[in-house]
Amino acid sequence: MIIIGEKINSTLETVRPAMETRDAAAIIDLARRQSRAGADYIDVNAGMFYKNEAEILSWLIQTIQEEVKTPFTIDSPDPKAILAGLKANRNGKPIVNSITGEKERINGILPLVVEYKTGVIALCMDDRGMPETASERVEVARSLIDLLTREGIPLDDIYIDPMIRPIGTGSHYGVVALDTIRTVKNEYPDVHIACGLSNISFGIPARKVVNQAFLVAAMTSGMDGAILDPLDKKLMTFVYATEALLGVDDFCMNFLTKFREGQLEL
Amino acid sequence: MIIIGEKINSTLETVRPAMETRDAAAIIDLARRQSRAGADYIDVNAGMFYKNEAEILSWLIQTIQEEVKTPFTIDSPDPKAILAGLKANRNGKPIVNSITGEKERINGILPLVVEYKTGVIALCMDDRGMPETASERVEVARSLIDLLTREGIPLDDIYIDPMIRPIGTGSHYGVVALDTIRTVKNEYPDVHIACGLSNISFGIPARKVVNQAFLVAAMTSGMDGAILDPLDKKLMTFVYATEALLGVDDFCMNFLTKFREGQLEL
Repeated sequence: MIIIGEKINSTLETVRPAMETRDAAAIIDLARRQSRAGADYIDVNAGMFYKNEAEILSWLIQTIQEEVKTPFTIDSPDPKAILAGLKANRNGKPIVNSITGEKERINGILPLVVEYKTGVIALCMDDRGMPETASERVEVARSLIDLLTREGIPLDDIYIDPMIRPIGTGSHYGVVALDTIRTVKNEYPDVHIACGLSNISFGIPARKVVNQAFLVAAMTSGMDGAILDPLDKKLMTFVYATEALLGVDDFCMNFLTKFREGQLEL
Repeated sequence: MIIIGEKINSTLETVRPAMETRDAAAIIDLARRQSRAGADYIDVNAGMFYKNEAEILSWLIQTIQEEVKTPFTIDSPDPKAILAGLKANRNGKPIVNSITGEKERINGILPLVVEYKTGVIALCMDDRGMPETASERVEVARSLIDLLTREGIPLDDIYIDPMIRPIGTGSHYGVVALDTIRTVKNEYPDVHIACGLSNISFGIPARKVVNQAFLVAAMTSGMDGAILDPLDKKLMTFVYATEALLGVDDFCMNFLTKFREGQLEL
């Protein structure tokens, strides 16, 4: 599983103040802890700072990469902020988070992905909005994959996010997400599927268990990446257990190692 | 999900003494608690009593059905014990647990399933032993389903158990089980898939998490029944959460009700 650590995000009220005050130590600590907990990428998002998003995003990247060498997902809908992040980045190949099928977003962001040869997260939505059914989502995914590969982006630099809607607002949305994941992964085995998970449980109780179950269900359906909190030890335990169950952890060695290191929550 | 409560089993050292001493109150209590916790069937197994299995199985059924009306799965490889159980049973339509593709077991048990019009759990193994690959398991499942339907047994009275082997003895056994479940359920949507779960984690640490993850993965792959401990509140919470995720719990009503009743473990 490709783990994208979601903690350095300006929408989190516990984290935003560290961005406002340019508290480098707090940001570095959060990056380091996510990296040590298994994050393959550190997501950086300064989207709540409307006036100086680009500046803060750039500061986050410069600050973190002084101390932590994990690559970034550069998280913004704004091409100017993404460009600032890409210019600042020295931590290897980043992922741009994200593009959609919306014309304006394609025109602004796709040239940056091509020029900087980054990975890219592509959300299953377009100018018509967020599709309702799995087959409509798959259709959007196909047209995004076509568009990106026509621009020369390799399949394994593409991360499809099916756009998960809460089961509390429609009991079919779990199946819509899982069917989208399964179909896209079957058609394009080299493309990654990377979901933001926690939206699935928005508005219902016992969210942690629902998120854990959805993680397992989505991995079983072909998801091989997730934007999540790697400091959530229980959730990471489910990542490792499911990798062992799906046969991608030879001899369960990683699972057994994490157990011996005390990194599992039982 | 069809929940088969596994607790009244002579292999459990905490339960066997109650059978030895014919402690009716203890047995009834265990049946009642499983039923209240959501068991659709109560498994009864007296297989450790080599000399008087039939007598004890019959006593278990007579004792429980005085107080608890949940139907039984009658759990034995021995036709004589199964017949004694069937004769004692008054709790509606039971499930015979289990038949295999082994000739002797078919000859002994199948006539009872036909005569008493019961459900039947069919294990994916035959006289050649337990198959190694998913495709071999599916082959055995197909031939068992053919055999049973030729005898007039309806598809939805058949419960296929793919026979789960521990991932600790082979890291491909999770995928073998999940592929078997998915293929059989796709080919025969009316046939049930009912697994004994806990074998998956035999010999590795953090068994509870592995079992929870496997439950979710197997349900996602099409399993609609399980032999498990319904008194394990956390495991049952995963059952309800996964039903909500798979869209078989309209408006998440059952999940929300269980939450309000305090039946979920968060």
